[in-house]
Amino acid sequence: MITLFVNADPLGFRRGSDAGWQWVVSTRGTPPSLIDRSFDSPKRDRSLDTTWSSFTVQRVSLSLYRPALIKSSPPFDSTIMSVSPETRFELITRNLQEVLGGDIIKSVLDEGKTPKCYWGTAPTGRPHIGYFVPLMKIADFLAAGVEVTILLADVHAFLDNLKAPLELVAHRVSYYSNLLKATFESLGVPVDRLKFVVGSSYQLTKEYNMDNYRLCATVTEHDAKKAGAEVVKQVSSPLLSGLLYPGLQALDEQYLDCDFQFGGVDQRKIFTFAELYLPKLGYRKRAHLMNAMVPGLTGGKMSSSEANSKIDFLDPPAAIKKKIKGAFCEEGVVENNGVLAFVRAVLMRIVEGRLARGIPLSQMQPLVAADAPDGTLFTISRKPEYGGPAHFASASDLESAYTAKEIHPGDLKAAVAESVASILEPIQKAFEASQEWKDVEKLAYPPPVVEVKKKKEKIYHPPPPGKGKKTTQVTVTDVKSAKTELLEADTASESTAIGLEHSKTDSIQAD
Amino acid sequence: MITLFVNADPLGFRRGSDAGWQWVVSTRGTPPSLIDRSFDSPKRDRSLDTTWSSFTVQRVSLSLYRPALIKSSPPFDSTIMSVSPETRFELITRNLQEVLGGDIIKSVLDEGKTPKCYWGTAPTGRPHIGYFVPLMKIADFLAAGVEVTILLADVHAFLDNLKAPLELVAHRVSYYSNLLKATFESLGVPVDRLKFVVGSSYQLTKEYNMDNYRLCATVTEHDAKKAGAEVVKQVSSPLLSGLLYPGLQALDEQYLDCDFQFGGVDQRKIFTFAELYLPKLGYRKRAHLMNAMVPGLTGGKMSSSEANSKIDFLDPPAAIKKKIKGAFCEEGVVENNGVLAFVRAVLMRIVEGRLARGIPLSQMQPLVAADAPDGTLFTISRKPEYGGPAHFASASDLESAYTAKEIHPGDLKAAVAESVASILEPIQKAFEASQEWKDVEKLAYPPPVVEVKKKKEKIYHPPPPGKGKKTTQVTVTDVKSAKTELLEADTASESTAIGLEHSKTDSIQAD
Repeated sequence: MITLFVNADPLGFRRGSDAGWQWVVSTRGTPPSLIDRSFDSPKRDRSLDTTWSSFTVQRVSLSLYRPALIKSSPPFDSTIMSVSPETRFELITRNLQEVLGGDIIKSVLDEGKTPKCYWGTAPTGRPHIGYFVPLMKIADFLAAGVEVTILLADVHAFLDNLKAPLELVAHRVSYYSNLLKATFESLGVPVDRLKFVVGSSYQLTKEYNMDNYRLCATVTEHDAKKAGAEVVKQVSSPLLSGLLYPGLQALDEQYLDCDFQFGGVDQRKIFTFAELYLPKLGYRKRAHLMNAMVPGLTGGKMSSSEANSKIDFLDPPAAIKKKIKGAFCEEGVVENNGVLAFVRAVLMRIVEGRLARGIPLSQMQPLVAADAPDGTLFTISRKPEYGGPAHFASASDLESAYTAKEIHPGDLKAAVAESVASILEPIQKAFEASQEWKDVEKLAYPPPVVEVKKKKEKIYHPPPPGKGKKTTQVTVTDVKSAKTELLEADTASESTAIGLEHSKTDSIQAD
Repeated sequence: MITLFVNADPLGFRRGSDAGWQWVVSTRGTPPSLIDRSFDSPKRDRSLDTTWSSFTVQRVSLSLYRPALIKSSPPFDSTIMSVSPETRFELITRNLQEVLGGDIIKSVLDEGKTPKCYWGTAPTGRPHIGYFVPLMKIADFLAAGVEVTILLADVHAFLDNLKAPLELVAHRVSYYSNLLKATFESLGVPVDRLKFVVGSSYQLTKEYNMDNYRLCATVTEHDAKKAGAEVVKQVSSPLLSGLLYPGLQALDEQYLDCDFQFGGVDQRKIFTFAELYLPKLGYRKRAHLMNAMVPGLTGGKMSSSEANSKIDFLDPPAAIKKKIKGAFCEEGVVENNGVLAFVRAVLMRIVEGRLARGIPLSQMQPLVAADAPDGTLFTISRKPEYGGPAHFASASDLESAYTAKEIHPGDLKAAVAESVASILEPIQKAFEASQEWKDVEKLAYPPPVVEVKKKKEKIYHPPPPGKGKKTTQVTVTDVKSAKTELLEADTASESTAIGLEHSKTDSIQAD
């Protein structure tokens, strides 16, 4: 029995006549066209019962063979297995707002097995640094020896804006995948148990769709509507897709073979829907772990959709400083304060993570000053005349000081801006070092073409023959079509508005 | 360019790990495992651009190769092509209640091409003779040189009753297919342009499902609900599937590559839905031909679900006589009179069809008496003392006479019963002659197992240890589980009740 891991190919999904493909496994030495085993795999992991000592896997398209990446099974992490199940469970569930079905995870841990988690994101607009929030929690999962599957929901992203061609979505899948990997690496978490799965690799298979139909023959309109109420934007003419997504997200748990799904607490109704309906299809109920919702870094409102209000992972320090300077951050008020929330949900956890990895506190500038006392998780540097550096050992301490107006918003913002620039630095370096990623960035997010309004030429409409003054001397001005190039809007912030959000809001809000 | 027709295999659809398969085409002489061309075909017809003079087609499953049937392209019917487009259009559209988009069919005919039609039915319960009604119209299409595709919607039939396993549905697909073919042959219509397509052969493909998702991202809940209002039973807790079916039926038009869809007028809203939404996916609008609704033969009510109120295609003459004798057939009343309606919609059209094929009127007993005058389409035989034989040249004549109470219900019923037995005779002979069909009938509709109520044995529940009178002498009676065998209900009449009807009601109602 050999376990095969076939990496999902972000560019693999094709439409039309090219939609038919399969994985072909053949023994070494024989031509790849000789099929020994083939499968239209609903999952990317396949167990092959074979006595072969070696074999090749190829993705067979209509007319071409493309080699697939083969990874061996991830190494068994003996370190984490020596940690008690209780400690691992604590690490998996800490800092969450809610845990449903924790016993499911406990029993997996008690059996000494590796719990499997799934988190989904639709690769639409450019990801902003709000993504750090769920990633910090995923880092906990990885540290606790959980096998994490990140679903790059390309089908949903495509449906999110039917005008965007699938090629563009494929590039975005690749961009997201590069970015998420680089971010996890910058956080120093083990990524050997991290898997990326592209939605189209299984969501269009016969098996999955049969299950979707079965589900639709079981789920009432009422339950589907209720489940999507918080994630699918409620409009006067809701689309059918909004009713389908809760069910698809439930099926994903089965097809991604997870023990628990992770998401923001706004997914709660979708999660309880999955708990109710999966068993009705004969599948097991999964646990659900939910992050609290965190206000966006640069503004508390969900509706902010201007590109310059969001901090991109690739923004240079000056742009970050400018954007945070303009952020909503009322003096003395903790509520809806995205800047404070980011310190609690991301920056302090990064420091905790570094400490856990044995990095000395003195090497954590600018998040923590070099001379900060032990236990400090965040430092706000100020000139001596404004009180000098302020060190905080917890988010509550910082929030108390902020409420007491001992910390000025300007000082908080300056400290956060410097820290954000610092945590983005390794990611931006990885970007600069990867020609493939740089190429894909251009393809995934082509620079917007500003609409140029051409002056309309006046067109003379001649009267019918024999009528009008200039009957015989008409010269019609050449009609030049005023070519209007589309301004490709950033769809990320609009995705919730068109009802196709698929587990993407999680704990992220527009910032 | 060679046109391939691969017959859909009713048993071909499988679940689970066996779901992956494809068609493999290889040149003669090479081993079939050497793939030359392969495709996961969304349609059963494929054009292959090849210079091969011969090749084999094989259905490749996970571990086995199964030969597929290959038919050459149906012969070009030169007879029908010599008929004028106007005459063919008249034949295609006669006796219908409504035609939408007739120009689409006209332009196909004017171009000298073969119009393509699709009619769908879900193979659930045993088909009853109400099926003659749409088949009479399909006979017109075939006579007019239309290529008719009959969709055997197995996926929908499966979903119709989630408890019925797919194996059973596969047998029912086969039973329906056998029955429909035998019926068309008994009607003497050319079946060379008749194609049977099994729904699962394309409705679970990537391409189809991607289109389904695209459609769901375009269709509003409101429009989907409105479209299904007449076909999907309106219940207090409607299922999601009821909202999906109008869209799936629209996609079927594209995937079955038809010029027009045929159905009962109860499908009107689904048809106009398809006309509105297919173009939004970039597909062309199809024409829609609608039969009038005909009351059931043995009763005017849709709700009659007792098996013995329906006339099965395999019922012997005595059973037919008994059932028609018990039919609702009020003296002097034409409305909701299923017996009269059957004469108009089926029996008289059969006579017309025979006349068109050059069969002399004298050879049409018992539908028309041997000595009937020219132009007679139906004869009601009576003893001389009751007025002797009554001949009718049109349905209106018969209905007028019936309204005037010149025809007694008993005489009408006797004549219809004899005629029905006569038109079923060749079909029953074909059944008796086909061991395969007889075998499949047993598998598709296993005889109901009557639930046997076993007397419950009294079970003594011992008190906790140390309590109760007989603490040390307890003997627990052996617990035999009262095995309850399920009574497999006839699902045909219930299909509308659970919202999964798929183009099946057509012009048929329960009789």
